[in-house]
Formats: sequence, structure tokens, C-alpha cells
Amino acid sequence: MAGIKRRAMLEAGRWGVIMVPVLTIFLVLWATSASFGQAYTLNPKTAEEAINQIVWANRILANEGIFDYLGHVSVRNPENPKTYFMARGIAPSTVTKQDVLELDQEGNVLTKNPQGRPYGERVIHSAIYRDRPDVNCVIHAHPQPAVILSISKVRFEIIFHPASVFHEGVPLFKDYDFSPKGGGMLIQKKHEGDSISKTLGQARGMLMWAHGCNVVGKSVPNACQDIIAMRDNIVMLLAARQFGEVTALPPEQAKIAAAILSGPERAWGAWVMSVRKNMPDMR
Amino acid sequence: MAGIKRRAMLEAGRWGVIMVPVLTIFLVLWATSASFGQAYTLNPKTAEEAINQIVWANRILANEGIFDYLGHVSVRNPENPKTYFMARGIAPSTVTKQDVLELDQEGNVLTKNPQGRPYGERVIHSAIYRDRPDVNCVIHAHPQPAVILSISKVRFEIIFHPASVFHEGVPLFKDYDFSPKGGGMLIQKKHEGDSISKTLGQARGMLMWAHGCNVVGKSVPNACQDIIAMRDNIVMLLAARQFGEVTALPPEQAKIAAAILSGPERAWGAWVMSVRKNMPDMR
Amino acid sequence: MAGIKRRAMLEAGRWGVIMVPVLTIFLVLWATSASFGQAYTLNPKTAEEAINQIVWANRILANEGIFDYLGHVSVRNPENPKTYFMARGIAPSTVTKQDVLELDQEGNVLTKNPQGRPYGERVIHSAIYRDRPDVNCVIHAHPQPAVILSISKVRFEIIFHPASVFHEGVPLFKDYDFSPKGGGMLIQKKHEGDSISKTLGQARGMLMWAHGCNVVGKSVPNACQDIIAMRDNIVMLLAARQFGEVTALPPEQAKIAAAILSGPERAWGAWVMSVRKNMPDMR
Amino acid sequence: MAGIKRRAMLEAGRWGVIMVPVLTIFLVLWATSASFGQAYTLNPKTAEEAINQIVWANRILANEGIFDYLGHVSVRNPENPKTYFMARGIAPSTVTKQDVLELDQEGNVLTKNPQGRPYGERVIHSAIYRDRPDVNCVIHAHPQPAVILSISKVRFEIIFHPASVFHEGVPLFKDYDFSPKGGGMLIQKKHEGDSISKTLGQARGMLMWAHGCNVVGKSVPNACQDIIAMRDNIVMLLAARQFGEVTALPPEQAKIAAAILSGPERAWGAWVMSVRKNMPDMR
Repeated sequence: MAGIKRRAMLEAGRWGVIMVPVLTIFLVLWATSASFGQAYTLNPKTAEEAINQIVWANRILANEGIFDYLGHVSVRNPENPKTYFMARGIAPSTVTKQDVLELDQEGNVLTKNPQGRPYGERVIHSAIYRDRPDVNCVIHAHPQPAVILSISKVRFEIIFHPASVFHEGVPLFKDYDFSPKGGGMLIQKKHEGDSISKTLGQARGMLMWAHGCNVVGKSVPNACQDIIAMRDNIVMLLAARQFGEVTALPPEQAKIAAAILSGPERAWGAWVMSVRKNMPDMR
Repeated sequence: MAGIKRRAMLEAGRWGVIMVPVLTIFLVLWATSASFGQAYTLNPKTAEEAINQIVWANRILANEGIFDYLGHVSVRNPENPKTYFMARGIAPSTVTKQDVLELDQEGNVLTKNPQGRPYGERVIHSAIYRDRPDVNCVIHAHPQPAVILSISKVRFEIIFHPASVFHEGVPLFKDYDFSPKGGGMLIQKKHEGDSISKTLGQARGMLMWAHGCNVVGKSVPNACQDIIAMRDNIVMLLAARQFGEVTALPPEQAKIAAAILSGPERAWGAWVMSVRKNMPDMR
Repeated sequence: MAGIKRRAMLEAGRWGVIMVPVLTIFLVLWATSASFGQAYTLNPKTAEEAINQIVWANRILANEGIFDYLGHVSVRNPENPKTYFMARGIAPSTVTKQDVLELDQEGNVLTKNPQGRPYGERVIHSAIYRDRPDVNCVIHAHPQPAVILSISKVRFEIIFHPASVFHEGVPLFKDYDFSPKGGGMLIQKKHEGDSISKTLGQARGMLMWAHGCNVVGKSVPNACQDIIAMRDNIVMLLAARQFGEVTALPPEQAKIAAAILSGPERAWGAWVMSVRKNMPDMR
Repeated sequence: MAGIKRRAMLEAGRWGVIMVPVLTIFLVLWATSASFGQAYTLNPKTAEEAINQIVWANRILANEGIFDYLGHVSVRNPENPKTYFMARGIAPSTVTKQDVLELDQEGNVLTKNPQGRPYGERVIHSAIYRDRPDVNCVIHAHPQPAVILSISKVRFEIIFHPASVFHEGVPLFKDYDFSPKGGGMLIQKKHEGDSISKTLGQARGMLMWAHGCNVVGKSVPNACQDIIAMRDNIVMLLAARQFGEVTALPPEQAKIAAAILSGPERAWGAWVMSVRKNMPDMR
């Protein structure tokens, strides 16, 4: 009896002694969970790191206003340059690791038992990874400023220094295939993906008429930083162009400026922090 | 004294054993409440599912900036095509199941013991359900871009591919009845509702001068997706038109594009997720 | 052994029996606290109700983007028409009951032991309450659209039906006193308040050049609804005027429309709900 | 039985007696943590107070939309006017006390064991502190309106009374050094910092072409208030200038208005409150 009592007491006492640090540890873990360390991996070395980065990129681009319920971002597989990772066809703000698929350069899904169908427009990603070995990330999105520019009389010019990365120019794609063989305003067939990649050429970004834009980069954080810089540059360009011509950076100055720009580490840290605050499941 | 202390600790220990799973279950229930499954029903088969969908549509349209404290959305009763469901006359962001009324095509309230009066402008919904058997959802709202377009010299054009669903055009209603028999800038009498329905014709959307717009659809998610596409299309059209004419989609291309567009499942999932985050009572 | 277990369970059970309803009551009280009922009082009958309404109006106008860290709203004392209530000189988003002062029509603070100094621009409120017995609420604010209109070549026109309440016109004040006797761009002396009131005349709203606007109403909810309608009307007017003249409501039509508009109950309910969500201390 | 009841209540009572005040104390501490008192120090007298103020200024300027993931704010050391405090090179929204460095007027880091590298553009701050003994705070930021103005045909004019502090004018810097000795669009070398300071002269703010702006003040809250006033003034100026020339304040009237403006106490209180709400780690 007494022994049981004592043990119970001991254990109840322990419970308090244990629970306070346990709760503290739990709260700390909770606050820093969702693979915090992984969030800052700029150059993933494993497929798992790359998949993790794609989840964060989907959330960041949704949180920063680049994606609405549409848009997709992919990363080249660091373990096999002939495949890449991209979410199945769901809204970017809802993507988790379980939704990420592995695809090849013909757009075939390699993942066994996928949780759903891939994006129809994956042919954009497939074609670019095939044609541009320097590219490890492709973003396709519909930010409003890009669409506005694509249908307006205004041409792209660099007027904000972080957008100097686009010193090679931002070509405009207009050759949609409205025949029964094509996807209309969507890019869904192989020849449409090829056509997009040809228009992109060696540039870092391009516009798609009445549709959106594509931005590529050597890493996911670089491409995220650049598409945000493109969006912001267009917002400011359109505002200033209301009053006539603007004082833009000539390409040669933009090229010098681009070489001096700092990397995406600073931005990525702030974006991750903001996602953690705004998306409860990413804490 | 010592005995009491000991027993208290014992009981506190048990308390923990009980409370941890209880709290866990409570949190899980709380996180998944508000009929999660129902939220994704695109085509309700019962009155109850339709009522549930109207609650979500009110919240989504408020959360996505289509509704401010005004505006209303209705759904045709899947159990009786001659009636429809719509909230009583309160702000959309505050609508719950208890606020939803059943109305007939003359605008009579069929719900027994309603919690309040219906919207005065329900005649818009009544007339459209009578005239358009293909329509299962009507949205009346005042998004600012629609009002701007309605009073400006700019005409509606399709410049963003999700808005291609409006390839039949977006007519403009101006025939308000300022006589003592009419509602002035409001649509409150039967003849005013008829007049709105006549202007809409077979189109999917229309503008109301200095007032707002109406959008109809074969389902609630379709109409929600389309009114957001209309709003966004107008925002971008107005921005680009500052620089002169724009390169818009001709109606025949828009018709092809509309046929290829994917359904509203992807959008609905993301909108529900956002409502859950922003409206604590919808978790 | 068994006896102790049983007793412990019994007691743990009791603890649960007590705690579940206690927690439930606590949660319900918490969710409905901050005098929920009072929040909907459109026409306060006591000084206490009026003070409560001023707290809500400060929070609502901050939450709806009418106030930034400046601006003030007052209500006539329902127990003494010669005095009114207004917060001391702090940011609207931080106002609580303890900050509300009673002032007379000369701008003297009647509250004993006030927690701080009144707004310098209280002379605007004093003069209007003196000159307009029909007015029970005065709002002075600096919404950006009002400032833009006040410095631009565009004149106020009604292009959105809720703004039809301004059918008597929206006069523009420009007669600031830059002499040593005046407040420069601020309205701080009695003669400056008188000058504002004279410009307002019998209108419901007025602009102040390079500064902001004043809106008055028969009740606090009415004035809140009207200043938001004015702000939104100007936003849309400016957007549409980029393309030339607009199709505005003639004053006689606006007068008819204003008479038919519904009251501010619907809006007030939605605004209170939004304040509760966004301002943790107002739950 | 009765004995057990009594004892259970006693023990439940004890639990309540302890937990209620403990929880209350915990909640109060939590709600008032993060050195609430310090947040209102307008004129820090110690290095510690100044460091604390820089943390708040980083968060406030991020929260108010002046900073995105870039930008920096510094404060002169009240204990040694030849040094100043500024965060290491991270995103403003993530700055904590541990990130603040002490720097001298040549830009050397004096802090032992700093947690990271300083901002490359610290030379802007160094040069201004050297040349302007009246300045105790320097803000460098990239608010979009400032960039728009810097590349457009519109000149800065004061059209909103809180911006009257800029009555001495807002010069525009364009002399970037694109040679191998310079930082391109960044200000990273001593001669580039000197060039910025020379352009600023005795003004309170300046624009940097295709880049952003700098604002200085006698205190951190003053500079924060002024850069927000500058941003808002430009937003409204650009909107009104779409319709031609505007009615701006002449410099002599702006000078009178600036002398009458109230201090930043009211704004600082509201900004701190908003940071506490939006940034969980600043509660």
C-alpha cells in the first residue's frame, strides 16, 4: 500500500517536473519544426532536399503574391539531371511533400502510386530542363503585372536594380495553338512546350501574352528572388510610364549591376519566416 | 497533511493521463470540424449540401475580396428546381447555416420561422433562375473594378485566359427605375428583376452601372471562379488601357480557350483553406 | 489499493465534471466579451453607451483603413446635447474606454483626471456640434483618396450608389491660416473650427486640401458607413477618370437613391466581427 | 463519502488556487514582454536603449511596408557620437538584439564576435553620421513609390501636410559608379557613401535613381514617421498627377506647417501595437 502510494506520489511529482520541460521542449520544437534547417538549403544535394525545397517554394510564392490558386514551380533532381520534381495538379498554397511528383523530360510521371495527376502545363518545365542545362528551377506563374505588360503597349525595361538579372531581355510569347492539336491558351502538348523553350532562349525570364510569365534560375531561391524582382519592376515601370518615358538602366549597366547583386539567402530567410507565420501547417 | 498532499499528487497524475488524450482528441476535432468533407462538394445532391455550399460561398467571396459587407450568392435547390437557397439580409462574412433561407421564383420566403428578412435584391436571383434553367448559382456583388468599368469609357475585353468564359460578352445594365414604383439604384421590384435577367440574356456575366455585377454558373464553384476571373480581368484591362488599346482575345479564340480551361476544384480547395485560416468560426 | 484507485478516479472525474463546464463557460464568455450587445447600439441612450460606441468606431475606422495613426471620431452626448465624447490624443487603433473624454462646444475637457491631453483639432468637432443640431457624429480623417482628390483637377461626382448620400455635394476647404494666429495645415483655433463648419454648411461631407476630409452623420454607424462610401467612391472615380469623363449620378437621381438605401446595421455587424478578429483586445 | 467529497474539493480547490494566479501571471507577462517600456523611448540615453530601438525600428518599418526583405536603419550611439548601431546583413523583419552591431564612421565593425557580416551599404550611414551632427538616425529603403518617382518625369512636391518636413526639398542621386572601383547600383565604397551624403546636403530625405531613398532624423521615431510621410506623399502625388498639375504646398507654407506638426509619439505607439500583433516573437 504505502509503497504504491509513494510510487504514485513520486510519479505524480515527476509528472510536474517532467511536464514543464517537456512542454517547453515541445513548444520549441513546434516553433522550429517543418525542417527549419532544410528551409535554407540553397543547393539541395539529395532528392529529399530538393522535394523539401519545392514545398517551401510553393508556399513562399503563394505567400508573396506570385501564385494565386494556379502556377507551378519545379526543381531539377540533384541525383538525376534527367528528371525533376513538381507538385501534382493542386493549388500551390496547399502543397505538401506527399504531393510532389518526379517527372522526366517527356513529362512522364515516374513516382509510383502518385496521389493525383500532374499539371497539364508540365511540358513547359520538361522542355526547358532539356534545353537549358544551366537551369535547375522553373517557375510558371500569372502575376497580374506580367499579364498587364503582355497585353499593353509598354515594353519591358529595367528600372529597379534587383531586376538587373534580366539584362538579356524578357521575350514575349504569343504563338498559342488554337487548332484542335493545341491547348488554346494553355501549353499542354510537347510542341507547345518546345515553342515556349525556344522563345525563352538563353534569357532568365519571359512573358506569355494574356497568360503570365516563366522565370528560370540556377537554384530555387534564385528563381524565386528573380520572379519577385520581375514582378516589382513591372509594377513600378507601369506606374512611371503613365507620365511618359522613364529613365531605365541600359543593358550594359544592368549587366554590371547584376554581377554585384547579393544572393537570395537574405530574402529566403525572411520569406520562410513569413510563411511560418501565415501558414499554420508550415510551422 | 502529508496524506492529502500525496493523494493530490496521485490524482494530478491521473488527471494528466486523462487530459492529454482528451485534449488531443479535442484539438483534432476542432481542427477538422465545420464539415470539411462537404466543403468540396461541387454538385450538391441534397438541399443540405446546397445550404452548406452557400455558407462556404459567402465566406469565400468575402475572403477573396469580391464581397464587402454587401453582396449575395444563391444556389438552386437540387431537390426542387423551382426554389433556391440564399442567406437572409446580413453581411456575407457573417453567414452561417442558420441564416440560409429557401425562396421561390417570386421571391417568397418558404423557410418557416426565418431568423430575419431576405435581401431586397432577391428579385435578381428569382428572375434569373426562372429564365435560365442552365444556371444553378447566381452571384450579385460590387467589386470595385466592375463599378469602375461600368462608369468609364472602357469596354469589356478578355485579356486574361481564365476570363475566356465570358466570350459571349458582358452586357451593361443602365435602366434603373427612379420612379416611385422602382428601387432607384437598387433592384427590388419584380419588373426590375425581369429587366436585369433580360439584359443578362444567355451571357455568364453582366455589369450594373454605378452599382456592380452579376455572374451566373452551372455550379457554385464555377460561378465563384468566374466572378474572380472577371474581376481580375478588369483590373488588368484597366491598367493596360492607360497606355492605349490592348491586345485582347478575339471572341472565337476565347471560346476555344474556355472549352479547354480546367474546372474549379483546384481553386475551391485553396479558397476553403484560406477561409479556414482567416475565419476562426469556419475551422 | 482498489479503494485508492477508485477514489482517485472519482475525484479526477469530479475535477472533469467541474472543469468542462467551467472551461466552456469561460470560452463562451471570452468569445462574446467586450460588451457584444453594446456593439450594435445604433442610437445610444446613455453616456456610457455613447462612450462604448466611440471605442468601437475608433477601432472600426482603423480596421477599415479610414484612419492610420491619426484621425478622430466623436459622438454627441445623448444625456447632454451641449457636450460630446472623443478619445484623448492617441492613435485610434489603441483607444479604450478609459481614453474617452467629455468635451464642451468650446473644446474644454470636462472629464475629471483625464488620462491625457485632447486632440488639438477638437475645434472641428466643437464647431460642427454647435452649428448642426442634426449631427450626432463627426469623423475627421486622412484617407489617401480624399487627399488625392483635394489636390487634383478632378471634382467629386457620385459614381457608386452607397455614396448617393453625398447628393448635396462635397465642398473643399482651402482657407488654412498660415499666420502666427493659426495652425498652418492644422485646425487648432476656434476661428479655424468655425471656418471648417462654415465650409461644411448643410452637407454630409467635405474635403480639406492636402489634408483629408470630414464626414458627419445622425449616428456613429451612419457616419462610418458614409465615410467608407465616400472613400470607395473616390477610389473608383479616380480610376475611371483616367479614361476621360465618367457617367455619374445626377444629384436628383442620387437624392432618390439615398432615400432608398438601407441603414448601417448590416455593415456595422460585419465591421465589429472583423475588429474582433484583428484586434485581440476587442474580443 | 462525505470525507472523500470534501477532500476532492479541497484538492481541486488547491489546484485551482495555484493555477489561476499562475496562469494569470503567465498571460500578463506574455502580453507585456519584449521590453514594452523600452518601446516608447524616443531619445535613448544608453547604448542598450538605442539597440532596443533599432530592433523595433526594423520591425516597424517592415510591418509598415517601408522595408521588404532589404533595407536598413541605424541609430547614433548616445554614449559615443562617433559610432552607431545597425543590424548585421539580414532581412529587417528577422532582426533581434543579438543581430545589432556597433560600427564606426569608417564602417568598421567594433562588436566583438559579431554574429555575421554587416550590410555592404553601411557606407551610406557612416558618411551621413560624419557629415551631419544633427542626425541621430539614418534609414535606407526601397519603397516602390520612391523608385517610381526616381525614374519618372514627375518631380517631388509636398501635397500632404505630414510631408511638410521635406520643405527643404528631396534631391535625386544618380551618380552611381559602374567602373570596376564602384558598386554599380549599390553604394559599397567610401567614395560612394561620400557622394550620397553630398547629394543629401542639409535635406531630410533624398531619392536614389532606380534604387530607393534615404531619410534622416534627429531620432529614430522621427525618421520612421518622416519616411512613411514621404512614401504616402509620393503615392498621392503620383495618383493626382495623372490628371495634370496638382495644387502643392509652396516651400514657405510647408516650413510653417512643419513647425506646427506634432511629434512621433502617437505614431510610434500605434506602430508598436501593430508589430506586437503581427510578429509573434515581439510580444
